[in-house]
Amino acid sequence: MTIDPHLAKAFDGVTTATITTVLLKKGLRNVWMRGTKPIRSPQQRQIGRAFTLRFVPAREDLATPASWAAPISTRAAIEAMPEGCIAVVDAMGCTDAGIFGDILCARMAKRGVSALITDGVVRDVAGVLGTGLPVWCQGVAAPPSVGGLTFVGWGEPIGCGGVAVFPDDLIVVDDDGAVVIPAALIDAVAAEAAEQERHEGWIMSEVNKGVPLPGLYPSNAEAKARYEAWTKGQ
Amino acid sequence: MTIDPHLAKAFDGVTTATITTVLLKKGLRNVWMRGTKPIRSPQQRQIGRAFTLRFVPAREDLATPASWAAPISTRAAIEAMPEGCIAVVDAMGCTDAGIFGDILCARMAKRGVSALITDGVVRDVAGVLGTGLPVWCQGVAAPPSVGGLTFVGWGEPIGCGGVAVFPDDLIVVDDDGAVVIPAALIDAVAAEAAEQERHEGWIMSEVNKGVPLPGLYPSNAEAKARYEAWTKGQ
Amino acid sequence: MTIDPHLAKAFDGVTTATITTVLLKKGLRNVWMRGTKPIRSPQQRQIGRAFTLRFVPAREDLATPASWAAPISTRAAIEAMPEGCIAVVDAMGCTDAGIFGDILCARMAKRGVSALITDGVVRDVAGVLGTGLPVWCQGVAAPPSVGGLTFVGWGEPIGCGGVAVFPDDLIVVDDDGAVVIPAALIDAVAAEAAEQERHEGWIMSEVNKGVPLPGLYPSNAEAKARYEAWTKGQ
Amino acid sequence: MTIDPHLAKAFDGVTTATITTVLLKKGLRNVWMRGTKPIRSPQQRQIGRAFTLRFVPAREDLATPASWAAPISTRAAIEAMPEGCIAVVDAMGCTDAGIFGDILCARMAKRGVSALITDGVVRDVAGVLGTGLPVWCQGVAAPPSVGGLTFVGWGEPIGCGGVAVFPDDLIVVDDDGAVVIPAALIDAVAAEAAEQERHEGWIMSEVNKGVPLPGLYPSNAEAKARYEAWTKGQ
Amino acid sequence: MTIDPHLAKAFDGVTTATITTVLLKKGLRNVWMRGTKPIRSPQQRQIGRAFTLRFVPAREDLATPASWAAPISTRAAIEAMPEGCIAVVDAMGCTDAGIFGDILCARMAKRGVSALITDGVVRDVAGVLGTGLPVWCQGVAAPPSVGGLTFVGWGEPIGCGGVAVFPDDLIVVDDDGAVVIPAALIDAVAAEAAEQERHEGWIMSEVNKGVPLPGLYPSNAEAKARYEAWTKGQ
Amino acid sequence: MTIDPHLAKAFDGVTTATITTVLLKKGLRNVWMRGTKPIRSPQQRQIGRAFTLRFVPAREDLATPASWAAPISTRAAIEAMPEGCIAVVDAMGCTDAGIFGDILCARMAKRGVSALITDGVVRDVAGVLGTGLPVWCQGVAAPPSVGGLTFVGWGEPIGCGGVAVFPDDLIVVDDDGAVVIPAALIDAVAAEAAEQERHEGWIMSEVNKGVPLPGLYPSNAEAKARYEAWTKGQ
Repeated sequence: MTIDPHLAKAFDGVTTATITTVLLKKGLRNVWMRGTKPIRSPQQRQIGRAFTLRFVPAREDLATPASWAAPISTRAAIEAMPEGCIAVVDAMGCTDAGIFGDILCARMAKRGVSALITDGVVRDVAGVLGTGLPVWCQGVAAPPSVGGLTFVGWGEPIGCGGVAVFPDDLIVVDDDGAVVIPAALIDAVAAEAAEQERHEGWIMSEVNKGVPLPGLYPSNAEAKARYEAWTKGQ
Repeated sequence: MTIDPHLAKAFDGVTTATITTVLLKKGLRNVWMRGTKPIRSPQQRQIGRAFTLRFVPAREDLATPASWAAPISTRAAIEAMPEGCIAVVDAMGCTDAGIFGDILCARMAKRGVSALITDGVVRDVAGVLGTGLPVWCQGVAAPPSVGGLTFVGWGEPIGCGGVAVFPDDLIVVDDDGAVVIPAALIDAVAAEAAEQERHEGWIMSEVNKGVPLPGLYPSNAEAKARYEAWTKGQ
Repeated sequence: MTIDPHLAKAFDGVTTATITTVLLKKGLRNVWMRGTKPIRSPQQRQIGRAFTLRFVPAREDLATPASWAAPISTRAAIEAMPEGCIAVVDAMGCTDAGIFGDILCARMAKRGVSALITDGVVRDVAGVLGTGLPVWCQGVAAPPSVGGLTFVGWGEPIGCGGVAVFPDDLIVVDDDGAVVIPAALIDAVAAEAAEQERHEGWIMSEVNKGVPLPGLYPSNAEAKARYEAWTKGQ
Repeated sequence: MTIDPHLAKAFDGVTTATITTVLLKKGLRNVWMRGTKPIRSPQQRQIGRAFTLRFVPAREDLATPASWAAPISTRAAIEAMPEGCIAVVDAMGCTDAGIFGDILCARMAKRGVSALITDGVVRDVAGVLGTGLPVWCQGVAAPPSVGGLTFVGWGEPIGCGGVAVFPDDLIVVDDDGAVVIPAALIDAVAAEAAEQERHEGWIMSEVNKGVPLPGLYPSNAEAKARYEAWTKGQ
Repeated sequence: MTIDPHLAKAFDGVTTATITTVLLKKGLRNVWMRGTKPIRSPQQRQIGRAFTLRFVPAREDLATPASWAAPISTRAAIEAMPEGCIAVVDAMGCTDAGIFGDILCARMAKRGVSALITDGVVRDVAGVLGTGLPVWCQGVAAPPSVGGLTFVGWGEPIGCGGVAVFPDDLIVVDDDGAVVIPAALIDAVAAEAAEQERHEGWIMSEVNKGVPLPGLYPSNAEAKARYEAWTKGQ
Repeated sequence: MTIDPHLAKAFDGVTTATITTVLLKKGLRNVWMRGTKPIRSPQQRQIGRAFTLRFVPAREDLATPASWAAPISTRAAIEAMPEGCIAVVDAMGCTDAGIFGDILCARMAKRGVSALITDGVVRDVAGVLGTGLPVWCQGVAAPPSVGGLTFVGWGEPIGCGGVAVFPDDLIVVDDDGAVVIPAALIDAVAAEAAEQERHEGWIMSEVNKGVPLPGLYPSNAEAKARYEAWTKGQ
C-alpha cells in the first residue's frame, strides 16, 4: 500500500491548502478533517492511502480491558496495516479517552505506518512522542479507549472530523491538518495541483516585489501574460 | 424479528426510567440515547429488536440524488427491515439534513416497522406525521439526507446518541426517550424490572398518603416489612 | 414588496423540503436556516421577500435602553418594512436575549409583515403569540435585546442560522423551518418545484398501495412510464 | 418561607421580561437562567424564595443507588424545603441524567413547594406531570441522577443556567423562563416593575390603534404627556 | 491611521489584562475577544485602530474562486487598509475555512498593517508565519474562505469573538488575546491604566518579599500609605 | 498536607494514563478532568492532596473589584492553602474570565503550593509563567475573574472538568492532564500502579524488539511466563 512513486512525485510540495482549492473547483467542499492537528510542531508532511478504523461509544459490557484480546481488536487491526499506509481513526470526536498510547504507536512505527490521523485523542503523550510516529489528533487524554469507546472494525467507510473517508482514498497531512482525496479523483487532482502551486509561488514573488493584489490574484490578462512569460523562462 | 410474546409481557408497563435503573445496578451507565425525543406528544411506547443503519458525512461525489438508486441505499435497507423491528439510525447527531421524509416513513409503516429512532432529524414533518410511523429524533430539517450525510450500510454496530447499539439488542422507547438493553442481558433485566415497577408504585401510593421520603425511598427495614405485607395482600 | 401573484401561484403547495432538493440539484447545499422553528404548531406557511436586520454583540456603552430612541434602531427598521415582506434577523444565534417582544411584533403585524425569522429568540412569548404575527425563532428568553445584542442596521447581507441572506432573496417558511431562494434563481426553482411535488405525490400514492421503494423512488424506466401515463390521465 | 403578601401583590402580573428590563437598568444583565423551560405549556407563573440544591459530577464510588439513603441526600433536602419555596437545582446543565422523578416530585408537591427549577432534566416525565408540581427544566432523560450526578448539599450559593442564585433570593418563573431578583434588590425592583407594566400596557394599546413606534416606544415628550393624561383618567 | 505617539506612550507596557480591569470598573464587561490567540508564541504586543472586515456564511452561488476578483473582495479591502491599522475580521467563529493565506498576509505585511485579528482561522500556516505578519486567530484550516464564508464588506460595525468592534476603536493584543477600547473611552482608559500597572508592579514586589495578600491586594489604608511613600521615592 | 513520603515513592514514575487504567479496572471511569492542560510544555509532573475552591457565575452586584477584600475571597483561600497541596478550582469551564493572574499565582508559589488545576483559565499569562507555579488550565483570558465568576468558598466538594473532587483526594498531574484518586482508594491504587508500569515497560521493550501485539498486550500464558522470568532476573 506504499504510495506509487509517480504519485509521490506529483504531490511533492503540494500543500493541503492547495489540494482543498483544487477539490473545491471540482465541487468538493467537505474534504478537510475538522479538529485534528499535528502532535508536534513542526511535523513532517505525510501522504499515503487510507487504512480506516472505527469506534462506537463505550458500553460497560463491551469496552473492557478484556476486550483488548478479542479477535476484533485494535491490536489485530494494527497487524493488518500495510507499510506506508495512513491509519485514519473514527473516534466520533471523543476527547476524553485516548484511542492509542505509546505501546500501540510503537508497534505502528515498527510496521512502517506513515501516520496516525484521528478526530479523537491519544494517551501517554510523552511515550507517543518517543515512538516517532507522526500523529494528527485533537489532543491528549489519560484514560484508555475503553473509558469512552468500543472498537468495532477496520477497512470500512468512516467519518473522521466530519469528512467521509473510504479505504484507499489518498490522505495528505501537513501543518494545516488532514485532507482526503477520493480515490477516483487522485489523478485529476495531481494534474492541477502542481501547476497551482507554481502559479501561487509566482504570485507570492510578485507580492514580495510590492505588486497590489487586484489584477494579480486572481490574475487578469496582463498578469497572466507576465506569468506565462515567466514560466517559459524557467 | 417481532418480539417474543413472553418478552412483551415481561416488559409490559416497564418504563425506560426503570430500565436504566436496573441496568445501572448491573454496572451499565451508558444506555440512554441522548437527544432523541418523540416526534409527537404523547406517542405510544414501543419495544422491539434493533435494526441498525449507518451514515457517514456527506461528500459531494457520493451524497447525490443519484445515490438513492444504488444497491447500498436507504431504500434497500428499508426493504430488508423485518416486521416488528425498531430501526435505529446513526446520523452522527447531524441536525441539518433529514435522514428520511414522508415517502420512506410511509414505506416503513407499510412494512410493519415498530418505530424509527435516530440521533439525527427527519424532513417533511407534516408528511411524516401523516404516515403514523412512531418516530424518535432530534427534530426536523428541510434538506435531504444527501445535503449532509452519506448512507453506508445496515446491520452493523453503530453509535446513536452516544450509545453503542448492536443488531438484535432490545430497544424500548417512551416519553423519556430510547434505551438499549444489550441482547445478552434481556432476561436478567426482565426479571428485575417488573418487581421494581411494583415497588415504586407502592412507594408512590405511600407518598400520596403523606409519608416522608427518608426511610421510605429507599426503604428501611420497617418500610420493607410494610411493602412485603402489602404484596402478600395483592 | 408583496410577492408577485405568479410567484405565489408557482410555489403554491411547494414545501421547504422540496425547495432544498431542487436547490441541491443546482449545487446549493446551504440554504436552510439552522435552529429556527415555528413558535406555534402548526403555523401557517409563509412566502415573501427578505427584509434583513443585523445585530452585533452587546457592549455596555452601546446596548442600552436609551439606544432604542436612536435613528438606527429596531423601531426605525420596523417602520421601513414593506407590506408582505419577511423580516430575517441575524442575531448571531444568541439565545439569551430576546430580539423583539410583544410591542414590536404587534407593530410588525399592523404593518402587514408576513413573518419574522431569526436565529435568535423572542421575549414576552405570551404577548408575542397574542399579536398573531407568524414567528420562526430558536425559542424564548426574558431579557431585552440590549442584554446581549446591539442593533446596527437593516437592508444589508446577513447570516441567519448559518445561511447567507441578501435583501430581496425569496424566503419560504413552513413546519420544516426556513429556506432562502437566491433572487437570481427564483424562476428556475419555480419551474421545477411544482413538477417535483406532483411526482412525489404520485410516488406516495404508489407506496400507499404497497409498491416497494427500489425502482419506484427514484423511478426506473417502468415506473417513469407509469407516472407519465398517470399524468396524462390527470 | 411563603412569600410576603405585599410582595405577591407588588409583583402581581409582572412578567419576567419586565423584571429583566428593570434589573438591566440597575446594571444587572445576568439574571435569566439559560435553558430552563416550562415542562408543560402553558404553566402557571410562580413566585417564591429560592431554596438551593447542588450536584457535582458522578463518580462511581459516590453516585450509587445506596447513596439515596445517606444523611446528605436529595430526600433529606426535600424534607427541609419550606412551604411556598421554589427549589432551584444546580445540575451543571447535565442533560443525560434526570435529577428527580415522579416520587420525589410527588413529595415536593405534598410539602407545598411552589416550583422546581433546574438547568438539568427530570425523569419519568409522564409521572412527573401527574404530580402537578410546576417544573422548569431543560427536558427529560430516563437515567437516574446517579448516572451522571452526585448530590452534595442544599442551602448554598449555586449556579443555575449560568446565573448565581443565593438562598432567599426571589425567583419568578413564567413562560419566558426563570429570573432571580437578588434579595437586597427586591423592594427596589417591586417599586418600578408595576409602573413599567402599566406603561407598556398603554403603549400596546397605542400600537393597536396604529401609532408608529418612533416617539412612542420609548416615549418622547408628547407621548409622555398623553400617557400621563391617560393615567390620570384611570 | 497610525496611532498617535502620545497614545502609544500612554499604553506602553499596559497589558490587556489591565485594560479589561479598567474597563470593567467603567461598567464594560464584554471587551475581550473569545477564542483568538497568538499564532506564534511569544508574539510581539500590538496596538492600533480597528479596520473591520465582515463575512457571512458561504452560499455556493456566491462563495466561489471567481468572487475573488469582484469589486467587493478581500483583495480590495486589503488595498484600503491604512498603515498601522489592525485588521479585525468577523468570521462568525468559523473554524473550517481559512479567511486568509500566505499571499494575502504577505500583502498586508507589505502595506504596514500592524496585525490581523479574527475569530476565524487562517490557512497555509507555514506560509503565513513566513510573512512575519502578527496574527491572532482561532487556529488553522486548509480550505479556502469560500469553502465556508462569503466576504461582504469592510468599514462596518462587526462582532468578533463575541465582542462588538466599530471602525476606529482602539485594539490592543498581547499573549492574553485581543481587547477593544471604544473610541470614546480611549483617553479615560489611558489615564488610569498606567497608574494601575505601576500599583500592581509594587504589589508584585511586596508578594515577592513574602507579604500575604489580605490587606495588600486590594490595599488597606496601611498598604496604601506604604505604596504612596514608595511612589514618592521613585 | 504535604504528601506522605511513602505515597510519593509508591507513585514515583506512575503516569496518569496508568492510574486511569487501574481505576477503570475498579469500576471508576470518570476520574480525568476534561479540558485542563499544562500551561507550559513540558511541565514537571506533580502529586498532592486536593485543596478545593469554588466559583459560581458572575452577578454584577456580587462580582466586583470590591469583593476582592471580602472575608470569603480568593485571597483568603490562598492564605489557607497548606504547603504541598494542589489547588483544584471549579470555574464551571468558564473560558472568558481568568480565575487568577500573576499576583495570586506568585503568592501561591511563595506558600509552597505544588500546582494549580482548573477547568477555567488564567490571566496575565506572561506574569503567571514568571512565577514558576505549575498550572494546568484550559487556556488564557485577559478579563478578571469578576468579569464572569463569583468566588463562593473553599474546602467543599466541587466539579472540575466534569469530575467530582473532594478535599483530600489525591491529585496527580502530568502531560496527559489531571486525575483524581478518591481518598479511600489511594492505597489500593498505589499497590497496583507500580506493577502495571513495570509490566508495560517490559511490553514496550518487546515491541521495540519487533514482537507483534496479539498475545503480548494483553499477555497470553507464554508472554506472561516470559515476563515473570524477566522480573526474576531484575
